[in-house]
Amino acid sequence: MSSLTNMQINGLAAAQHRIQQDLLTALDAFSIPEPLKGAVHHAVMLGGKRVRPALCYATADIQLNKNFAAVRRAAVAIELIHCYSLVHDDLPCMDNDLLRRGQPTCHVAFGERAALLAGDVLQSMAFEILGSRLFDQGAAVDQSIVIKQMQILATASSKMVYGQMLDLESEGKQIDQETLEKIHKNKTGALISAAIMMAAVAVFDGVDPAIPKLREFAQAVGLAFQVQDDILDITSSTEELGKTAGKDEQVEKSTYPALMGLDQAVIYAKELHDQAFNALKFFNGNASELEQISLFLLNRKQ
Amino acid sequence: MSSLTNMQINGLAAAQHRIQQDLLTALDAFSIPEPLKGAVHHAVMLGGKRVRPALCYATADIQLNKNFAAVRRAAVAIELIHCYSLVHDDLPCMDNDLLRRGQPTCHVAFGERAALLAGDVLQSMAFEILGSRLFDQGAAVDQSIVIKQMQILATASSKMVYGQMLDLESEGKQIDQETLEKIHKNKTGALISAAIMMAAVAVFDGVDPAIPKLREFAQAVGLAFQVQDDILDITSSTEELGKTAGKDEQVEKSTYPALMGLDQAVIYAKELHDQAFNALKFFNGNASELEQISLFLLNRKQ
Repeated sequence: MSSLTNMQINGLAAAQHRIQQDLLTALDAFSIPEPLKGAVHHAVMLGGKRVRPALCYATADIQLNKNFAAVRRAAVAIELIHCYSLVHDDLPCMDNDLLRRGQPTCHVAFGERAALLAGDVLQSMAFEILGSRLFDQGAAVDQSIVIKQMQILATASSKMVYGQMLDLESEGKQIDQETLEKIHKNKTGALISAAIMMAAVAVFDGVDPAIPKLREFAQAVGLAFQVQDDILDITSSTEELGKTAGKDEQVEKSTYPALMGLDQAVIYAKELHDQAFNALKFFNGNASELEQISLFLLNRKQ
Repeated sequence: MSSLTNMQINGLAAAQHRIQQDLLTALDAFSIPEPLKGAVHHAVMLGGKRVRPALCYATADIQLNKNFAAVRRAAVAIELIHCYSLVHDDLPCMDNDLLRRGQPTCHVAFGERAALLAGDVLQSMAFEILGSRLFDQGAAVDQSIVIKQMQILATASSKMVYGQMLDLESEGKQIDQETLEKIHKNKTGALISAAIMMAAVAVFDGVDPAIPKLREFAQAVGLAFQVQDDILDITSSTEELGKTAGKDEQVEKSTYPALMGLDQAVIYAKELHDQAFNALKFFNGNASELEQISLFLLNRKQ
C-alpha cells in the first residue's frame, strides 16, 4: 500500500479545519445548560478524522460548491449524529469503553447521565441545524433540498441504530459474510452514504444521473471504510488508534479479517475502493476531492 | 374539582383510538430488526394517555382538519419523541424505574442495550415520519409546513433534554419557583407546546393571529399539566398512576406542592387553566376540543 500523499493530507486537513469552525459556530448557537454543555462539547470538539464532513464538502466540490450553506449544515448535522452514536456506543451498558480519540470517553468525564443526555440532544440538534438558516448568506436554499436532507439524515440515523442492534446480536456468534455486510451497511455505511447524498441533493437536481453514480460510490466507500476499520483494529496499536485496539476480538465480534483472513480482507478493501473509483469515472476528473478522500481512507493507519 | 364529563372522556378516547392506529401504521412501515422491534413496540404501543396527539388533533379541529395528513404525521412524531424520552428516563442510570403504564419498563423487559437503542431510534423515526408522505391522500402538503414542523419538533426535543438535565441537577437542592418553571417549561412544556404548534402551522398561515394565541394557550396548558402531575404524584396511589407514586419525594425532587404547599399548588394549576381558557376565547367557541382536553388534564386522576 502506498503511503498518504500531501494532497490527501492537505485536503482532509482543510475539511477538518472548516468543520471544526462550523461545529463550534453551531454549538454556540444553542443555550445548553451545564453539565450537559460540557458533555456535548467534549463529545463533539475533541476531534476525530471528520471523514463524513470531508465527504460532504468533496461531493459539493464537484459542482463548485453550489448551495454551500446547505452543504455546511449537512456536514455539521451528520457529524453531530456520528458523535452522538459514539457517546452512546461507549456507555457502560454498551461497549463500556473508557478511551476515545485518546481522551476519556464522555461518561467517564461527565458521568453516565450527562453522557446519555448528550447523545440524545446531539441527535435533535442535528435536525435543528439542518432546518435552520445557519451559514445562509442571502437567499435561503430551496425548501425541497432541506426536506430531502432531513429525510436522508433521519433514515440513515435509524439504519445506524438497526446496524448497532444487529452487531450486538451477532457477538459471540458465527455469522456469514452476507450478515456481516448487512450489519456494516447499516451501522457505518448508512451514515457515510448519507454524508455524500446530503451534499449530492444540494448540488444536483433530483433526476441528475450523477445522483445514482454518487450512491454507487457511497455504498462502496462506506463498506471499504468498515473493512479497513476491522483491519486496523488488528494491525494497529491502541496508541496509534486513539481507542482500545484488539477490542473486536476481545468481545468476539465478527470482522472481515476473522471471516476471510487478514490478507483476503486487505484485498477486499482494495476491491471496494476500485469499485468506488470506477463510479467516479462518470465525473471525468471533476470529483478529484472525493478520489483523494477515498485514497486517504484506504491508506490511513487510524 | 368537578369530575370528568362524558364529552371529555369521549374526545380523548377518539384521539387515543386514532393515534393507536396511526402509530401501528407508522411502525409497520419500518423494517426493524429484533429484539429492537420488540423494544420499540413495547415502548410505543402499551398505551399512555396520548395527551400530545390529542392536542394535535384538537388544534387541527379549529380549522376543520385542514392538511390533516401533516397533522397526523405530527401526532405520531411527537408521541414517538415522548416515548423515547420515557424509555431513556426509566434507564438504570437515570430514574431506574421498573414500572411504567402498569407494565415492566422497556429495559426490564428487553434489556438495557435494546432500551437505549429503542430510545435512540424512536427519535430518528419521528423525523422520518415527519418528512414522509405517510397518510397523504392526493397532493402533498406545502413543503414550508413540513420544514416548520421539523424545526418545532427538533427544538422541542432539544429543550426536553435541557429540562431533564436541569431537573437532575436540581435533585436534593432547594430551588425557587423560577428555576422550577424553567425546568418544566423545557422538560414537559416544550413538547406539549410543540404538539399544539406543529398542528397550528399545518392549519394556519404563519402570520395568522391565531398562531400567537395558540402559543399562549400551549404555554399555560403545558405548565398546568406539570403542576397537576406533581399534585397527582402525592395524592394518587401507584395503582391509580400505573407508575411508582411518591417517587418525587423519594428522590428529593423539587415539585410545586413541595415548594408552595399542596393547596396552593391546586390553586395554581386552576389559575394556569384559566389562562389557557382565556387564550382560547379568541376562537369564539371553535376551539371546543382544545377546551375539553384542557379540562380533562385538570381533572384527571392519573
